[in-house]
Amino acid sequence: MPAPHVLISEVGPRDGLQSIKATMPTADKLRWIDALHAAGLREIEVASFVPARLLPQMADAAEVVRHAITLPGLTVMALVPNRRGAEAALAAGVHKLTMPVSASAAHSLANVRKTREEMVEEVRAIAALRREMAPQVRLEAGISTAFGCTLQGEVPEDEVIRLAVQCVAAGADESGLSDTVGYANPAQVRRLFRRLRAELGDKAGAAHMHNTRGLGLANCLAAYEEGVRTFDASLGGLGGCPYAPGASGNVVTEDLVFMFEAMGVRTGIDLARLIAARAPLVAGLPGEPVYGMTPEAGLPKGFTQGKSHV
Amino acid sequence: MPAPHVLISEVGPRDGLQSIKATMPTADKLRWIDALHAAGLREIEVASFVPARLLPQMADAAEVVRHAITLPGLTVMALVPNRRGAEAALAAGVHKLTMPVSASAAHSLANVRKTREEMVEEVRAIAALRREMAPQVRLEAGISTAFGCTLQGEVPEDEVIRLAVQCVAAGADESGLSDTVGYANPAQVRRLFRRLRAELGDKAGAAHMHNTRGLGLANCLAAYEEGVRTFDASLGGLGGCPYAPGASGNVVTEDLVFMFEAMGVRTGIDLARLIAARAPLVAGLPGEPVYGMTPEAGLPKGFTQGKSHV
Repeated sequence: MPAPHVLISEVGPRDGLQSIKATMPTADKLRWIDALHAAGLREIEVASFVPARLLPQMADAAEVVRHAITLPGLTVMALVPNRRGAEAALAAGVHKLTMPVSASAAHSLANVRKTREEMVEEVRAIAALRREMAPQVRLEAGISTAFGCTLQGEVPEDEVIRLAVQCVAAGADESGLSDTVGYANPAQVRRLFRRLRAELGDKAGAAHMHNTRGLGLANCLAAYEEGVRTFDASLGGLGGCPYAPGASGNVVTEDLVFMFEAMGVRTGIDLARLIAARAPLVAGLPGEPVYGMTPEAGLPKGFTQGKSHV
Repeated sequence: MPAPHVLISEVGPRDGLQSIKATMPTADKLRWIDALHAAGLREIEVASFVPARLLPQMADAAEVVRHAITLPGLTVMALVPNRRGAEAALAAGVHKLTMPVSASAAHSLANVRKTREEMVEEVRAIAALRREMAPQVRLEAGISTAFGCTLQGEVPEDEVIRLAVQCVAAGADESGLSDTVGYANPAQVRRLFRRLRAELGDKAGAAHMHNTRGLGLANCLAAYEEGVRTFDASLGGLGGCPYAPGASGNVVTEDLVFMFEAMGVRTGIDLARLIAARAPLVAGLPGEPVYGMTPEAGLPKGFTQGKSHV
């Protein structure tokens, strides 16, 4: 198998599951993660280490991580909002920590009850903890509301880039940009990722796009054309941001993988198996809507993966 | 008002209405077209001139055209599959004729019961008729199934380009490319429009993309980046191709206009009025589903049209 051209980072088991009211039983989570791994996904955000009273959907985070790290070749990622969460995640054995750092001052307070400056200090503290407890673990800062915010509207691009740089300076291995509320457009995506890559080089991280206004794939395409090679997506489009009113709609993994594979951009993911991974998701969340145009329409007649090449 | 950067060609009243079972009453069609014009649309495909026994939804084509040509600044377009339809459309007073010419041999026979070669001869006959009856009227060939076909699968790119060139040689003023069944991907869109523009220059026509697999806007973005400046779209995503099994989903005008305006690409269309134009559509087609992410999510906080610039 030739090496993939892009890394699709599946966020459904964390971002998706924490955005909905129902709690998926642990056994179903594990079956779903197994199916995602079997489809070829090599990075999965499997849990969020937050107090169970705040997010009961994530109460089994440690158990989920302990299972996921047994899957060969998989990078197991967890979201941690603070030092206490990072300690628990490192103790459970994650390979990668991701921290949400809001570029919008208003969203930062609403989401984690901290200012942006306090979050940069949190990144510094967690980077120090990581060096001490598990130096091989990677630490990512995900700059949320990087393309606008439902609370404050426009977020100045200079502030976004400055924050991303501050997070790396504080010890993060990479800073990515998230369109938390689905405000991004392709021109803006190109501008911001171009600046991010100019500032951070290979420490410029993933594009996390939402499909709230239908532009999710166009924005991923724009990011790809600027050199981004890691893309967050959620199977069935599950999830969004529960603290940003009106926000919804992660990019659908199935549609994103179809786009790249059809373009000849290898993802390492088997589309038929990826679509099959919807079954354990649906089984574990009866009645929850799942999205995706490619699974509904089916693959084109005569479509074979890996046929064309970039 | 500065000049628009792109022309959005609304196809809902033809492509949309002929794809569904219900027939919109004539008075509702006129109200809908008025609302589209009021939103700033300057090209609308208002009808198809085909026998009423085949498409009862289009039985009032002449009446619709006679109304639409009274709207100032509007280019009124109609689809004509043959010489008889073209005669009727020209008699009604259209400004532009569009002919569907399938690049897929199988789809051509299924859609118009003619081979591709016979359709090129039809273009020649209609071009001659136009010169005689109304030389100021423009004639467009829309190369359908240009990106693949549900009946035959892959459509060789050489055949697509050759057919587009033949149509212009036969007298069409422009040849555009249509992703009739939603198989296109951005890399293919770039390749084909680059070749089309290299062959035809300013006689290279519109991009008609479908959103069947969620890639509609990404494909429009790719076409834009190759220099395409005319884009077909359908309000509420109404329509598709009734003769291509499994096909559905024109690009949603509202989402396409939002994407361009957010990028600073002027469309000349007022988004609030465009979203308001859904009301007469819904009123004229009770119970028919309409799509569109931007109308559902609303415009971003603080969003103003024409703010940024390319």
